Amino acid sequence: MTQPNHPQAAGRTTLGDAALDAEIRDTAAALADAARDATLPFFRSAGLAADNKDDAGFDPVTQADRAAEETMRAVLAERRPEDGILGEEFADRPGTSGLTWVLDPIDGTRAFLSGTPTWGVLIALSDSDGPVYGVIDQPYTGERWEGGLGRAQLTGPRSTQALRARGARPLDQATLFTTFPEVGTLEERAAFERVSKQARLTRYGLDCYAYGLVALGQIDLVIEAGLHPYDICAPIAVIEASGGVVTDWEGGPAHGGGRVLAAANPEIHASALSVLNGG
Amino acid sequence: MTQPNHPQAAGRTTLGDAALDAEIRDTAAALADAARDATLPFFRSAGLAADNKDDAGFDPVTQADRAAEETMRAVLAERRPEDGILGEEFADRPGTSGLTWVLDPIDGTRAFLSGTPTWGVLIALSDSDGPVYGVIDQPYTGERWEGGLGRAQLTGPRSTQALRARGARPLDQATLFTTFPEVGTLEERAAFERVSKQARLTRYGLDCYAYGLVALGQIDLVIEAGLHPYDICAPIAVIEASGGVVTDWEGGPAHGGGRVLAAANPEIHASALSVLNGG
Repeated sequence: MTQPNHPQAAGRTTLGDAALDAEIRDTAAALADAARDATLPFFRSAGLAADNKDDAGFDPVTQADRAAEETMRAVLAERRPEDGILGEEFADRPGTSGLTWVLDPIDGTRAFLSGTPTWGVLIALSDSDGPVYGVIDQPYTGERWEGGLGRAQLTGPRSTQALRARGARPLDQATLFTTFPEVGTLEERAAFERVSKQARLTRYGLDCYAYGLVALGQIDLVIEAGLHPYDICAPIAVIEASGGVVTDWEGGPAHGGGRVLAAANPEIHASALSVLNGG
Repeated sequence: MTQPNHPQAAGRTTLGDAALDAEIRDTAAALADAARDATLPFFRSAGLAADNKDDAGFDPVTQADRAAEETMRAVLAERRPEDGILGEEFADRPGTSGLTWVLDPIDGTRAFLSGTPTWGVLIALSDSDGPVYGVIDQPYTGERWEGGLGRAQLTGPRSTQALRARGARPLDQATLFTTFPEVGTLEERAAFERVSKQARLTRYGLDCYAYGLVALGQIDLVIEAGLHPYDICAPIAVIEASGGVVTDWEGGPAHGGGRVLAAANPEIHASALSVLNGG
């Protein structure tokens, strides 16, 4: 049995209490189920109401986003009232257990509003060291990635499969994903493009789904900037449990958000980190 | 009853013979089913064999691509031996019926190789005027778009729904998709960027799935360049049957491939066409 509060190379396998681990996994499943029920009626519905919370850009918040976070908060109030909540849409709720649920009810609101099934519900449980367990759920395709507390699996529409990130390969054989061609600031974009130029293939526009593809062993790298903690905590848990590595662009912890480098293995992580930083 | 060989504004509703129309729809469904069975075992499989048929770029052809086209050709040899076949992977087969099946076994091979469920099997039936009927099939999500010969529907994992492209809205409220940020030649890219700058939201990387989103009423525009006929014939039939408009960048027929503008309605088609051409 590993000890709590000490991150493992391949994700943390326990909070130190098997009953608590099971309760966390069950609670996360209940949260994901509730978010599916809240979001699906809005997906591809006509007349979707979208606010614009960032006048400088285009960051729509939908009724679905708010409904999903509200229903997840209600589940937590019932099942785990002692835990904290950090969510995208509503105020932080401090807890007393030392554990915090980090919730993004719809990661990829642009994808959601465009009808693309690559948005996701992100659910993570963090302690003071960062994410312990995470779920990436795609309600429309019926895909649910889970990582941490002894789990690393994708439950899909056709089967459940173990997650394992792919093995090392040279950067010039790698597939790289990011959400936007216009990654972050001009300086961040230049750093991204240094890696992109060396990679075999660069693809855009998948939001959290790209992290799921790293965990699935399908792609090698995701590079993003300007993330919030709720964008990345669940992907960190899923990818680490699958053998991958997620850090910021300096190689430090990424669960605070900002600039993120997610990699399928330590070798390609090191290669990409070096090129990101001008090496 | 409309006459054959005269395109309708909203897609052609008949080949002039109800029994033939039904046979075409049934054959297309059999083709799509066969392609699902041929492609799914390869999707997200480890060790996928990828040839590189274009050394200058990255245009992988997979075992799945070839297996799917072979199985579709076998279905046609059995059911419709008198029709021609224009497929991506094998030589053209001339027919004697005046009807040609236009097949792209996997549109979006890069998506397929990355594990993204946004590739598709494209199946169209064309006569001398262009596509009459088309299917866009996504085997993993279980989504099948059909358009033409009286059909305009999406059969999805949860339900079947009628397709209707969205109504007119100003370009600055529109969502625009394309496959690559690097659309075509430098001149073509500049034209694309003129439209992109005026659109509300531009998204990348969806291949044929983006055309399905136009037909579904989710997005307004898709702009591409460098297409082959088999990339666009099925989307034309599906979008036209849903009330949308697909032309080349000069406003002429698009079924020959090349530069394509797909729009949800005639109004936004006219706006985008004008801006594409420097207006």
